[in-house]
Amino acid sequence: MARVSLTWENGVQRNSFIQFIDINLRGAGQVMFQNNPLTGLLFIIGIFWGAIAAGSIAIGIGAVVALLISTLTAMVLNVDIGSLRQGLYGFNGILVGIGVATFIQNTPLMWVYLIIGAALSTVAMLAITNLMKNWGMAALTFPFVLTTWFLLLAVYQFTHLPIGSLGPPALPLSGNLPGTNMPLTVSFLLTGWITGVSQVFLINNVVTGIIFVIALAVSSWQAAILALVGAAVGLSIALLFGANAHGIGTGLYGFSAVLTAIALGSVFYSPSFKVVLYTIVGVILTVIVQAALNTALSPIGIPTLTAPFVLATWLFLLPKEQFAPETV
Amino acid sequence: MARVSLTWENGVQRNSFIQFIDINLRGAGQVMFQNNPLTGLLFIIGIFWGAIAAGSIAIGIGAVVALLISTLTAMVLNVDIGSLRQGLYGFNGILVGIGVATFIQNTPLMWVYLIIGAALSTVAMLAITNLMKNWGMAALTFPFVLTTWFLLLAVYQFTHLPIGSLGPPALPLSGNLPGTNMPLTVSFLLTGWITGVSQVFLINNVVTGIIFVIALAVSSWQAAILALVGAAVGLSIALLFGANAHGIGTGLYGFSAVLTAIALGSVFYSPSFKVVLYTIVGVILTVIVQAALNTALSPIGIPTLTAPFVLATWLFLLPKEQFAPETV
Amino acid sequence: MARVSLTWENGVQRNSFIQFIDINLRGAGQVMFQNNPLTGLLFIIGIFWGAIAAGSIAIGIGAVVALLISTLTAMVLNVDIGSLRQGLYGFNGILVGIGVATFIQNTPLMWVYLIIGAALSTVAMLAITNLMKNWGMAALTFPFVLTTWFLLLAVYQFTHLPIGSLGPPALPLSGNLPGTNMPLTVSFLLTGWITGVSQVFLINNVVTGIIFVIALAVSSWQAAILALVGAAVGLSIALLFGANAHGIGTGLYGFSAVLTAIALGSVFYSPSFKVVLYTIVGVILTVIVQAALNTALSPIGIPTLTAPFVLATWLFLLPKEQFAPETV
Repeated sequence: MARVSLTWENGVQRNSFIQFIDINLRGAGQVMFQNNPLTGLLFIIGIFWGAIAAGSIAIGIGAVVALLISTLTAMVLNVDIGSLRQGLYGFNGILVGIGVATFIQNTPLMWVYLIIGAALSTVAMLAITNLMKNWGMAALTFPFVLTTWFLLLAVYQFTHLPIGSLGPPALPLSGNLPGTNMPLTVSFLLTGWITGVSQVFLINNVVTGIIFVIALAVSSWQAAILALVGAAVGLSIALLFGANAHGIGTGLYGFSAVLTAIALGSVFYSPSFKVVLYTIVGVILTVIVQAALNTALSPIGIPTLTAPFVLATWLFLLPKEQFAPETV
Repeated sequence: MARVSLTWENGVQRNSFIQFIDINLRGAGQVMFQNNPLTGLLFIIGIFWGAIAAGSIAIGIGAVVALLISTLTAMVLNVDIGSLRQGLYGFNGILVGIGVATFIQNTPLMWVYLIIGAALSTVAMLAITNLMKNWGMAALTFPFVLTTWFLLLAVYQFTHLPIGSLGPPALPLSGNLPGTNMPLTVSFLLTGWITGVSQVFLINNVVTGIIFVIALAVSSWQAAILALVGAAVGLSIALLFGANAHGIGTGLYGFSAVLTAIALGSVFYSPSFKVVLYTIVGVILTVIVQAALNTALSPIGIPTLTAPFVLATWLFLLPKEQFAPETV
Repeated sequence: MARVSLTWENGVQRNSFIQFIDINLRGAGQVMFQNNPLTGLLFIIGIFWGAIAAGSIAIGIGAVVALLISTLTAMVLNVDIGSLRQGLYGFNGILVGIGVATFIQNTPLMWVYLIIGAALSTVAMLAITNLMKNWGMAALTFPFVLTTWFLLLAVYQFTHLPIGSLGPPALPLSGNLPGTNMPLTVSFLLTGWITGVSQVFLINNVVTGIIFVIALAVSSWQAAILALVGAAVGLSIALLFGANAHGIGTGLYGFSAVLTAIALGSVFYSPSFKVVLYTIVGVILTVIVQAALNTALSPIGIPTLTAPFVLATWLFLLPKEQFAPETV
């Protein structure tokens, strides 16, 4: 393994095509904050597994095409080389590709739209990075969220881009949702837990979830554990408050929680007992924001994407400077 | 009175329990910008009066519990001691507590939710303070607004947290509201005026409004006058434009106007003739934003809370640097 | 022509009334970034032509009244003289005046509302300018958008300000719009192209559009060409994606594209081949955001105004610092 890794590094140094592949694989890995090409490769394998299992390989192809386009756009725009090589101009692109291919019907024009969206995600990444640097904060996946929200809202006006599985726009139910009998079987809970991880890439598939956990462990065992803990806490809080059983069972209360857990627990704060507690509270906020955005976006017929993760993590990172150094 | 005050100050210096009480009372007072424990105590008395009169003492208890939790959270997070002692980590918490207890049914889980919300309000306060300091601006009550919007939007998805008096979500009426016969009696106008003050804490009660005005006068007679002027201007503008009579009579066009008047007229600008004019225009904007957010939030079934005050005051504070020094 | 210009400049220097007129004409010109009084005069002539043709001269009068009020407000607030003389406190006001007079019925109270709105637009301009200067960015027409959104949302609550041609609020159509037969005649396309320019001032009139192009050419032939190119690209993209034929034919996919093209292509970046490409991608984003906001604002019954231009241009300006100097 170490030898393969060394050989790969050598190839990256010597051959600019291999370097380009490396940048793109790291771009895939950065969706969960991993600057690691093997993690990225396993993520892409997991995406194809889920896409094929769901009968729409276009989602996998869309992911790869958008990843390449967003990286190429960054190169054309002469972005900072260091950030480029870490894959920071790929992770929003790959998510835009999956979003477009998932929610819009597969027509030739959809591919034009996907390519435009992938290029725009790189401009958005540059813009949001510049916007947030005043506070020493990262763009996270907000460039993906913003770009994809624009693309999906717009197709309601575009007859040549037929909607696949969006909406329909509806007012939130007055009073509460009809009581749903929670099938609290072990199998239901396990499925909800692991698809919470796979849904980070909008895939509802247990095998994909397991591949993603392995992909994380290859790069950082802490990240793998935090992903599993984040998904478990997200699912538990959703159960406690009585969220929709279908949503829980397909991991929809897990994916943003996974990302918040990795971000707060291992990327932006150094691990400690207090950080673990703080991260758990951050995950609880993520679940509340997930439910809140489900309500708020219902009348305009678009999904939350990873906005709950972005909002909760920004809110929990902004106080950073104000903590006395010994606490967090 | 001066002697009681001196004795209290001595107690605060010597006894950390009394100091904790002092911090919390100041936290209540800071809702209307008063760093004064007696003002805070009278605010809490006014809240309980209104809560009991409305038959739901839970609102008063929720206010106190959330106030304590948000202050304790600030202590656990080791925030800056100076800000803590002025009560800056309590005023959002007390409002979150009232909001949760007012709009969500009183169940054991509601109390868990209220405690989580109060703790989150302190994280939000740290975050928004950090966000706004680039412009030398305060967070105002936006941490309360943001946290409570998330909590209330989310309960539409949570069957274990039944909604009390929210919504129902509805499209704004096309064309205008049906004409409402304005009962322009002295009693109607007086009630609308004074409940405009009590609604700062979401309470619809004339006695509470009077207690709040006294509470302000104890700390600053300018603040008390500005509150009454703000509520009167807000009510007058709402009448001029033909706002809903029920809303006017229950103070719903007054509470944000009260806060804008105190903020612009006495806290952030030094008093002068020009500042009085500027403040009145700020109050007019507050009423327009109040009506605008009533419309904008209607499809997602949540109340404006104090967002009209926050938006109008931020807009009127941001130009501060650009005024020539002699004008404002 | 040069002589007239010289005489005018002399008048501006010597006579403060002529200077006041000059400031207001430049204010009109700044809607399309032209610091030129003759351009502003031609814009106002174009507005009156369109208003009279549509049978509502109040729109023209509203434009002029609001322009004067917003400039006077800036003088009362003692703003920076340099910005004032360039007309930077007029261009949002004139647009607010047109917006209010277009969407709200012509009653005496409407004029009060228009004057309040014009004054508020100047406060909003100072606020947004201060907000954006951290990133070296201009407020663009966002003060107009924000002020007018508040004013229009609010009238749904105000029975004394009857709505003219707003709304009705509606959920976006689930699935896609019914297929509209595109009448792809030369006349349809030409009309859609030129009204794209006239709609910058909310006017749907071909002659007005031609007057506006001449007004731009008087100040900058690049701006005139960019306006025509922007409108053409906007229309083409809207046709490609299958946008609503009525919207295309009345220039509704053109006006924000016109502004984005002028802003990116001539104001904020120095012209080059790469800048032209970058500008075209910015215009494509503008069309997507136009469609997206059409969907997002549908349930709350307000128009997008120039928000698509503002959002797309901010997103394409924010990366500026991150480009290597030789690229853009």
